[in-house]
Amino acid sequence: MVEHPSQLISPALERLRQTTPLVQCLTNTVVQQITANVLLAAGASPAMTDTPEEAADFARLASGVLLNAGTPSASQYAGMREAVRGANEAGTPWVLDPVAVGALHHRTTFAREIIAHRPAAIRGNASEIVALAGLGGGGRGVDATDEVAAAIPAARQLQRDTGAVIAVSGAEDAIVTAEEIIWLRSGSPLLQLVIGSGCALGALTAAYLGAARDSGIPAGDAVLTAHAHTGAAGQLAARRASSPGSFAVAWVDALYELDAAGVAELVAVRRELA
Amino acid sequence: MVEHPSQLISPALERLRQTTPLVQCLTNTVVQQITANVLLAAGASPAMTDTPEEAADFARLASGVLLNAGTPSASQYAGMREAVRGANEAGTPWVLDPVAVGALHHRTTFAREIIAHRPAAIRGNASEIVALAGLGGGGRGVDATDEVAAAIPAARQLQRDTGAVIAVSGAEDAIVTAEEIIWLRSGSPLLQLVIGSGCALGALTAAYLGAARDSGIPAGDAVLTAHAHTGAAGQLAARRASSPGSFAVAWVDALYELDAAGVAELVAVRRELA
Amino acid sequence: MVEHPSQLISPALERLRQTTPLVQCLTNTVVQQITANVLLAAGASPAMTDTPEEAADFARLASGVLLNAGTPSASQYAGMREAVRGANEAGTPWVLDPVAVGALHHRTTFAREIIAHRPAAIRGNASEIVALAGLGGGGRGVDATDEVAAAIPAARQLQRDTGAVIAVSGAEDAIVTAEEIIWLRSGSPLLQLVIGSGCALGALTAAYLGAARDSGIPAGDAVLTAHAHTGAAGQLAARRASSPGSFAVAWVDALYELDAAGVAELVAVRRELA
Repeated sequence: MVEHPSQLISPALERLRQTTPLVQCLTNTVVQQITANVLLAAGASPAMTDTPEEAADFARLASGVLLNAGTPSASQYAGMREAVRGANEAGTPWVLDPVAVGALHHRTTFAREIIAHRPAAIRGNASEIVALAGLGGGGRGVDATDEVAAAIPAARQLQRDTGAVIAVSGAEDAIVTAEEIIWLRSGSPLLQLVIGSGCALGALTAAYLGAARDSGIPAGDAVLTAHAHTGAAGQLAARRASSPGSFAVAWVDALYELDAAGVAELVAVRRELA
Repeated sequence: MVEHPSQLISPALERLRQTTPLVQCLTNTVVQQITANVLLAAGASPAMTDTPEEAADFARLASGVLLNAGTPSASQYAGMREAVRGANEAGTPWVLDPVAVGALHHRTTFAREIIAHRPAAIRGNASEIVALAGLGGGGRGVDATDEVAAAIPAARQLQRDTGAVIAVSGAEDAIVTAEEIIWLRSGSPLLQLVIGSGCALGALTAAYLGAARDSGIPAGDAVLTAHAHTGAAGQLAARRASSPGSFAVAWVDALYELDAAGVAELVAVRRELA
Repeated sequence: MVEHPSQLISPALERLRQTTPLVQCLTNTVVQQITANVLLAAGASPAMTDTPEEAADFARLASGVLLNAGTPSASQYAGMREAVRGANEAGTPWVLDPVAVGALHHRTTFAREIIAHRPAAIRGNASEIVALAGLGGGGRGVDATDEVAAAIPAARQLQRDTGAVIAVSGAEDAIVTAEEIIWLRSGSPLLQLVIGSGCALGALTAAYLGAARDSGIPAGDAVLTAHAHTGAAGQLAARRASSPGSFAVAWVDALYELDAAGVAELVAVRRELA
């Protein structure tokens, strides 16, 4: 089923801009700056509160929470457990980005443990989703070695096991809910040359879920809109810059400039019943 | 009392450029890169030495020290205590930026403890200054929910209690000393969309205090100049860019390009006896 | 002996672009983002895996490993020891960047200990190399206070003691191997105003050594090419931008755009038998 993306995208994007959701990011130190700038440009408010002492309290205040497994210290793992506890007590949606799960044992164990605690969404590339579901070996760090289509059975299983929306990022993204798979074409290959573009997408997913909460907007549409906003901004940036330094700057600009109509014009969406 | 800003700004800015002060930043990992780039562009030299093992030794060498409470780990708190000890032994001026104090209990306790050790300046938004003084509840993280004017009684009390120059950042900044309040109009709303613009201002405050030390330049003028330099660069950047990615780049450029006359031309300063 | 740089540079640069080496960086949090973006733009793949639990496993998979002593925590030191263990078991070349060694006791002790474990290269400024060799006092943090030429005896001694290629960065860089000293003129003074430009060069050195491994390309040529690529990109960027914000963006662009011929055209190389 092909339909006009604006029906899916407009409610979530407009609500994000109206509500400026506060997003708590427990993420790796490599991408904290770009993640915060992406959230600000898109229309959200970032806070990187991740210590065990503060994470639970902050998660009760936040609109959404991101857990990114990129450079896990013992202290940040403790902070993540606290954040999930606080989030679940307050009904704050939280997102897991299982960076390099499968390739590295330590974080794979952590990710499998934490998804028992009801994430609202899980966002990764194909090899990470397959590895998290326990169905494959995983890639070499952050590169995807499985195709998105091949990861759909794993994504469906993860969806059933956790209740979360599962987003598989790739050339075409797949957003898997209990009812459907939404396929999205958007983005630019240059996004792969900007560190943190995927991690920032995880944070934006938490932002959109936070904005959509109690609004009647389906969680799958919120997750889709995060991906569409990110990808469309990449497309607009690629028109303005062809090398990664200036592309990264143009991408942040485009996240700020695009409205729902602008995003919808740039992306292609296809829905498939589950 | 309105006067031409160049009288206040020129001595401090010229001295910064002549002396290239070495600024030790114990700051949150989100903003370390932009803070270092801002210091370099403005004319200072950054060093992010923050471990308990090295912080005191480095604070004895440094021209100025910044403590930013943004993502406090137990280790960084220990490093901050060491840095303050080293700084005070050597007479190095140090600055506290009480990020999100009031909103989060853990860092509020730390900030109240550390200000007993004679900071040269404290720089925060209105809600942080009010909370640090113990006069209000604080905001939701880093957003200011109190107006600057409403925070003046708290700033005055903090000034009396600590002897520090108190800078309250907002649409109009207030620099509170024992003798006067200096009001500054400068900046651009786009600075709010660049992560670390406020944190970098804290670091630049330490740079200017370090440069001004033993020069006869009043500490209040040094703090004012840090704010004016930051804000004027924002104004110049806003003429060149209207979206946050390219604005951030233009802001760093402008910090480098502006001289004292250029800063003075862009900002408005008003002095009020305390 | 002056010769055309392309003979030395082309094999290594072309091999980097063909093999996309995976570079594990155990580096300071200030420069992680720019380091990763530089590696991506140049043609390598970054991973900042630095915890004690994961560092050894990852070093066995990686093409090259960087150890940067910039903001050393106890945990990262443990991670560095693990990474060296894993790297040496798998034959992965690793590089030490002794940031501020000499100026700070704690990291000097660590750096002297770790170089006993067969680094492939050591890259620092003159004062760091002199201090690491135990022949001088070191500078004030990251600034070079010794000239490159004056550091050659120290570099030769470090070379003999460790077997590593020693790169001394300065206005003219010296690459010291057992057989020769390669002198390189390249770069722009604006690189000094971009935080992490030197740290990213250390990472690129690991990338080039990883790409050159088992290829017949001499390690000295790989290290030279890392420096030439970095410096030439600085020269190209300086033609496009004269202030540090936009220069940093143009530098990342240029690292991506330059091929071997473009690099060779911009730099000057001189070889001297040891």
